[in-house]
Amino acid sequence: MIFKQIGIISTPFKKREGMPIQPRGAKGVKGKIVMNKEFSIGLNDLNGFSHIILIYYFHKSEGFELETKPFLDHKKRGIFSTRAPKRPNSIGISVVKLLEIKSNTLYIENVDILDNTPLLDIKPYIPEFDNYEVEKEGWIKNKIEKLNTIKSDTRFI
Amino acid sequence: MIFKQIGIISTPFKKREGMPIQPRGAKGVKGKIVMNKEFSIGLNDLNGFSHIILIYYFHKSEGFELETKPFLDHKKRGIFSTRAPKRPNSIGISVVKLLEIKSNTLYIENVDILDNTPLLDIKPYIPEFDNYEVEKEGWIKNKIEKLNTIKSDTRFI
Repeated sequence: MIFKQIGIISTPFKKREGMPIQPRGAKGVKGKIVMNKEFSIGLNDLNGFSHIILIYYFHKSEGFELETKPFLDHKKRGIFSTRAPKRPNSIGISVVKLLEIKSNTLYIENVDILDNTPLLDIKPYIPEFDNYEVEKEGWIKNKIEKLNTIKSDTRFI
Repeated sequence: MIFKQIGIISTPFKKREGMPIQPRGAKGVKGKIVMNKEFSIGLNDLNGFSHIILIYYFHKSEGFELETKPFLDHKKRGIFSTRAPKRPNSIGISVVKLLEIKSNTLYIENVDILDNTPLLDIKPYIPEFDNYEVEKEGWIKNKIEKLNTIKSDTRFI
């Protein structure tokens, strides 16, 4: 399956070390998306939404490990039970705040994404579709509080 | 960018017409995923999670429209403000309930996905990462109640 870049995400993060973990660890961090001009029409109506889902390519991740030590843990975990970037398909998702759209540029906030990341898709974030209560959240349950203090390190580089 | 199928999603939906809109419109619908054997190890620890994010390929969607009439509306909207399948990159996401994993087969529920859909990625659903309150939800705001009664039609076929 072949996917194409539809835009490029610019952020303050020039290297993979020291980055926030998840948008929740990136509060107030601003970035922008420049969409390829040919897709500008597709942005119509999007400014009605305050939050958007970005689907993008972890362009610096090479190869993958089926078990990996996530940033929030000290044990190896199956890759599909983590959000680590070195995955069989290097696809990342982040929900960010949409501040403004000017022509083909989107200004966004709460950005946990590496600079120059190729964008694959944008979808509107809709709580009635996307918010779930869960019964179980596995290995991560008691580790989430670390989100605000921990940053990425070199383990996936 | 080239992505590979890591598994296949089986569901009761053999054609694109008459399908539920979103997992929220597919309560109780069961399906399963058969992962390619080579990725089985990557499923470790996943059974600790009750909900998972599936990222998949809308394999029956050909081409795209930058403006489209979504199932929940009567007006054309920019494609990126919709969850419609005919997108520049045909990537779908659904949060489903994970019932059980047996070897390389995952049993899932609340499935709004077409039968035989190629799976690209699985990520654990973590409310502390993934639940957001929003200020604005654009054109869809007063149309969400239709989710439970409306089904897909032929408009994207």
